Amino acid sequence: MSLDRLLFKIKEMNNPSVVGLDPTLDYIPPYIKDAFLQEFEDPLEGAAQAVIEFNKSLIDALSDIVPAVKPQAAYYEMLGWQGMRALAETIAYAKRKGMFVIIDGKRNDIGSTMGAYARAHLGTVEIEGQAAEPFGGDALTVNGYLGTDGIAPLLEQCAQRDKGIFVLVKTSNPSSGELQDKLCGDKPVYRLMGGLCEKWGEACMGKYGFSAVGAVVGATYPVQLKELREAMPHTMFLVPGYGAQGGGASDVAGAFAENGMGAIVNSSRAVLTAWKKEGCGEREFARAARREAIRMRDAITAVIPPMRLPE
Amino acid sequence: MSLDRLLFKIKEMNNPSVVGLDPTLDYIPPYIKDAFLQEFEDPLEGAAQAVIEFNKSLIDALSDIVPAVKPQAAYYEMLGWQGMRALAETIAYAKRKGMFVIIDGKRNDIGSTMGAYARAHLGTVEIEGQAAEPFGGDALTVNGYLGTDGIAPLLEQCAQRDKGIFVLVKTSNPSSGELQDKLCGDKPVYRLMGGLCEKWGEACMGKYGFSAVGAVVGATYPVQLKELREAMPHTMFLVPGYGAQGGGASDVAGAFAENGMGAIVNSSRAVLTAWKKEGCGEREFARAARREAIRMRDAITAVIPPMRLPE
Repeated sequence: MSLDRLLFKIKEMNNPSVVGLDPTLDYIPPYIKDAFLQEFEDPLEGAAQAVIEFNKSLIDALSDIVPAVKPQAAYYEMLGWQGMRALAETIAYAKRKGMFVIIDGKRNDIGSTMGAYARAHLGTVEIEGQAAEPFGGDALTVNGYLGTDGIAPLLEQCAQRDKGIFVLVKTSNPSSGELQDKLCGDKPVYRLMGGLCEKWGEACMGKYGFSAVGAVVGATYPVQLKELREAMPHTMFLVPGYGAQGGGASDVAGAFAENGMGAIVNSSRAVLTAWKKEGCGEREFARAARREAIRMRDAITAVIPPMRLPE
Repeated sequence: MSLDRLLFKIKEMNNPSVVGLDPTLDYIPPYIKDAFLQEFEDPLEGAAQAVIEFNKSLIDALSDIVPAVKPQAAYYEMLGWQGMRALAETIAYAKRKGMFVIIDGKRNDIGSTMGAYARAHLGTVEIEGQAAEPFGGDALTVNGYLGTDGIAPLLEQCAQRDKGIFVLVKTSNPSSGELQDKLCGDKPVYRLMGGLCEKWGEACMGKYGFSAVGAVVGATYPVQLKELREAMPHTMFLVPGYGAQGGGASDVAGAFAENGMGAIVNSSRAVLTAWKKEGCGEREFARAARREAIRMRDAITAVIPPMRLPE
């Protein structure tokens, strides 16, 4: 009914971070790519198989210290349906290893269609009496531009299947202000969206004070991050933009509540390409990722209050 | 470089409408579903194969009178990667039959990630020197909440590969006004988004006066449709909400310019389920769809100016 499962794992591991599984082909060590591209005639299939191998090794190296992964749908779609199969296999593997899976799809549509997305990513599909689970994520990022009836079908999955969503509020990219910062009366658009998140969350509050409706708020806008933390006390934040996009530990500190909870910070590139930055050799990629994930965890926990979950 | 290919086809067929291929399982005649669900053990695979069969029959029945199809990604994702393969096969088949394909994905993300979506849906992916085309659409619907740098990678595909996009401006759903109608100064949010579309289109104008950057504007808001037509003279409109959602021919008339061009109206449910409404028997579904598509074409062309393309 909420993001409680995620909050609990964060507390348990004392790690409020998530690794973004955004496998552009450049990030994958050549020895993996070469093997699979030689094995499969179809380059999309070969690349997708390389992605699965890469992701599984990363998950193996991270699952005991990182609570969640966030596969970015775009990098899987880029490899066609073969890539979408790699997405499904990645999600299944991460869940088997006990990780919470946030599908970063930023999906949005009118109500009836959003129902299809909700079933695709968080739910099951009934086919002649058989229930199939298409992707099986624990949470999905979504875009709220269409308002309440594009969110309602997701809330059903949250309630029925203990899932969560993260709604784009203030994104991390340079041009995010073009629309999001525009003032409507005395409030910018991102505050209106934040207000909608708080409202949507009322129906699906968890036991730790946060609802199933989270928000995406970029690390690259620390002032707005703090402002939104105050304005949205019941909304958990997913914070992209840490590391490669320019946000540091001190920038994300404002995303957290006084009890050290309420936010999870994403890093993709810095963790996935740590083997390149360390210059440690391609076969070390998973261990290098683990080292970077530990550095990130320690940098963030050093600047936030000690984590406490309400009893 | 623009939506000229689509405008030309609309004029050639004298039909400013597009059929939405939104194959929920309820729409597919039982004789097709039963055959494929019996043939394949995996229900997602069986359902996806039924979708391909359904879509191909519809495309065969429509391709000489309807210029474009618009597969809605959600209904394919709902069937997992198997459904995404059905999407790819549907697109390839429609293109072989000469139709223009608008992928309705409403994708959005930060620039680097949007580059992956742009290649996935409109472009090609380079894998060790080989170019593969993941989905191969002619146009993609997108959400502009992230501003210019989430749109720029799409404009590259538009310029290099003669593709187009449709940006959500004023959506057809009941709650679209919650954010989109909020006043920023003297203009509602949907007008700000409309202004961005005009600006983005400047770099990719076509020879018929419309750019590669179209807009999604719902038939269910005819007053705003007219207002936006005046405010966005270089932007082609994709108009959902006709038929099952409540919009009629007179409601969409305002979407068209004085030369009868500049808009394409979508209908999904009414065309796909015409066989049910007509009560004509399930094996007549494709012919019933054609009859409904003709009724729609005639209803719309009756209320708009005769089509003319500038020389």
